[in-house]
Amino acid sequence: MEKIKIGLIGLGTVGSGVLEMVSNNQAKISNITGRELIIKTIAVRNVAKHRSEVSDDIILTDNVDDIINDPEIKIAVEVMGGIDPAKEIITNLLNAHKHVVTANKDLIASHGDELARIARKNNADLVYEASVAGGIPILRTIVNSFAADEILEVKGIVNGTTNYILTQMQQKKWSYEDALKKAQELGFAESDPTNDVAGIDATYKMIILSQFSFGSHLALDDINIEGIQNIKLEDVAQAADFGYTIKLLGIAKRVGEGVFAEVAPVLVPSDHPLATIHNENNAVMVTGQAVGETLFYGPGAGGLPTANSVLSDIVSVTKNIALGTTGNTFNNYQHESEPIDKGDVIYPYYLSLQMLDVPGQILKVTKLMMEIGASFSQIVQTKANDTDARVIFITHAMSKKQLATLKAEIDKFDTIELRAAYKVLGE
Amino acid sequence: MEKIKIGLIGLGTVGSGVLEMVSNNQAKISNITGRELIIKTIAVRNVAKHRSEVSDDIILTDNVDDIINDPEIKIAVEVMGGIDPAKEIITNLLNAHKHVVTANKDLIASHGDELARIARKNNADLVYEASVAGGIPILRTIVNSFAADEILEVKGIVNGTTNYILTQMQQKKWSYEDALKKAQELGFAESDPTNDVAGIDATYKMIILSQFSFGSHLALDDINIEGIQNIKLEDVAQAADFGYTIKLLGIAKRVGEGVFAEVAPVLVPSDHPLATIHNENNAVMVTGQAVGETLFYGPGAGGLPTANSVLSDIVSVTKNIALGTTGNTFNNYQHESEPIDKGDVIYPYYLSLQMLDVPGQILKVTKLMMEIGASFSQIVQTKANDTDARVIFITHAMSKKQLATLKAEIDKFDTIELRAAYKVLGE
Repeated sequence: MEKIKIGLIGLGTVGSGVLEMVSNNQAKISNITGRELIIKTIAVRNVAKHRSEVSDDIILTDNVDDIINDPEIKIAVEVMGGIDPAKEIITNLLNAHKHVVTANKDLIASHGDELARIARKNNADLVYEASVAGGIPILRTIVNSFAADEILEVKGIVNGTTNYILTQMQQKKWSYEDALKKAQELGFAESDPTNDVAGIDATYKMIILSQFSFGSHLALDDINIEGIQNIKLEDVAQAADFGYTIKLLGIAKRVGEGVFAEVAPVLVPSDHPLATIHNENNAVMVTGQAVGETLFYGPGAGGLPTANSVLSDIVSVTKNIALGTTGNTFNNYQHESEPIDKGDVIYPYYLSLQMLDVPGQILKVTKLMMEIGASFSQIVQTKANDTDARVIFITHAMSKKQLATLKAEIDKFDTIELRAAYKVLGE
Repeated sequence: MEKIKIGLIGLGTVGSGVLEMVSNNQAKISNITGRELIIKTIAVRNVAKHRSEVSDDIILTDNVDDIINDPEIKIAVEVMGGIDPAKEIITNLLNAHKHVVTANKDLIASHGDELARIARKNNADLVYEASVAGGIPILRTIVNSFAADEILEVKGIVNGTTNYILTQMQQKKWSYEDALKKAQELGFAESDPTNDVAGIDATYKMIILSQFSFGSHLALDDINIEGIQNIKLEDVAQAADFGYTIKLLGIAKRVGEGVFAEVAPVLVPSDHPLATIHNENNAVMVTGQAVGETLFYGPGAGGLPTANSVLSDIVSVTKNIALGTTGNTFNNYQHESEPIDKGDVIYPYYLSLQMLDVPGQILKVTKLMMEIGASFSQIVQTKANDTDARVIFITHAMSKKQLATLKAEIDKFDTIELRAAYKVLGE
């Protein structure tokens, strides 16, 4: 049986998973591809540290050129992460006519188009299923199963760390700080959790999902990003009383000829499928013009689930090698989007205000709302402390422009403070 | 741009959806495939009936040979359903070197292997994503994204009619008969609903899912089938009190070197993702050794969702034509399974018994359970009528052999009747 030799760059959780899966599932892979996959070389920073983890017939090196310059290696798997030096390494691999499988979302979200062009020029495959939502095969599903449908919206829970934290806040009544600490202890959050909790990681994934869904590239600056750092337990509890669960959602949807994208905390109706995604799991909901709502759920991270996505990429490349059909762009849908006015996008909002507990305060807010042409569907008032009341409003759909005006006007009152404003998802 | 001409056989809900989608989404399809798709000919039983629905440049015929014998037509789409004459027609199409896209689950479940061989011999594609779970792209996902993983279990809600009925029973407290009547009024159930409510439709889909997941073919006789016709509202309510939702699940799992498959009502924990699938929706949960639990959710039927799956098949075949890679079997995983002893498969069970309300009855049952080596985790007793008590047991995991013995022994008591026994899904 013909052998396909693979070079692996990086041997962390995902790299070890790839190594394990290639050896454990050789029989099934051969059955499907008619090829035997062999990991020939692994490049790591510290060879001594990893020597005992790797069988003796695999070359362990700290020089990635041992993979780039090895004519026997057909497929390189990059699971080191980060933009530098991964970008240069992948560029060199593609120029050396290697097919590249990567799990590197930062790199693909930032430089995916450029790398895809280099791949195409070299008749090489560049695939990256594992870059979004670890174990969920969402990119290939969009490519293969929504090819003839118009995708109207793609949204979901694409960061496991924040979903773990929000699940703990909801289920155990923990504060944000306590839930974050627990997530760090369990290894679900890093010691500097900013990238996750501020929504950056989710935004990179939404950039890639948008590219596949709408055929056009969004820059980081095109996307409103709000993290979960300021979510109060009181808001989680209040949302639950109203029948909602607060989730950090990435939402990208077609608006006219453009695409609106945002990553922010959203109140999701508790019987909506996205509200039932707990802990570190991910889920992506794709709404198609023809097919309607579909949802794809699974582990968002973890060594073996992510390795499975890497392996399906390797199998896909192996099939292309066997069929002589390499060099086709992973996402081959291209569609020019026009800029949109984000201020016009409308949603209902959850507004949490703290105000001096004297007559006339709510009237001020309702008058403001009337002036900007917006209205409420639900109001609840509770005591915040001895002098202040806490008033929660759920509004009817209003535009971001209206919301911005409302915020600016409320800001002028000494006696009223807007403490939180979150979108509300319709059913 | 090169044109790919298509023949459509059948113009019911799905056929009309295919016609609509090809014309509405031509731009995107051409963008992705570099080909223009044209429906040239449609074969229907009654030409006069359909003439007004179809534009004049499409040939409408009642003779399927007009498609089979037309050398211009490259892809035939069969959406007429049923085994005869569909089997003969598809055989003739393949032998005429047409690629075939079908949504025909009965045919594929019964004769898929034979048709796949004919396709291969003629270097033709035979694909059938739409045959299982309408709008959910589950077959291609298993082929592409679980190629390197070992699938341990595939289970799900694969029949929309029964899920609609069970959802109404649960949410509206309707009897089975009332819910079925409503489903018939809304067009979710046929006037003779046997195929759906007795679990036959779900079983065909599980045969196809098993083939893709485990690489081996199950016959209808290999599968225990139990429908929903005998589910009582009292059991739906009692299950809810225990924290479960009754769903008609298809379950196929690897047991040793074999595959166990069953379609039956199952108590699903209410916070399990499968319990949140309402109405006519479908969901398939795939458990992989590496990836863990993944779930794919979407519309299980309907013209446009099913048409979307047909269209993704057409796009896939079109890509293969463009790349010169037709003739590869849709499901290329083949793995010999050994027969298993179904009697050894264990689950917890929900048992509903009616017994004369006199002392010693429950003792009889608990003694029986002890004798067969089984035990209970929960017992609830309520009044059934003036003379009888209703006793519900949730058992610890027990084998089908133990259950059969228990049933036979209870049958010997004049004063005790076993009214229902359903599997319970662990969390």
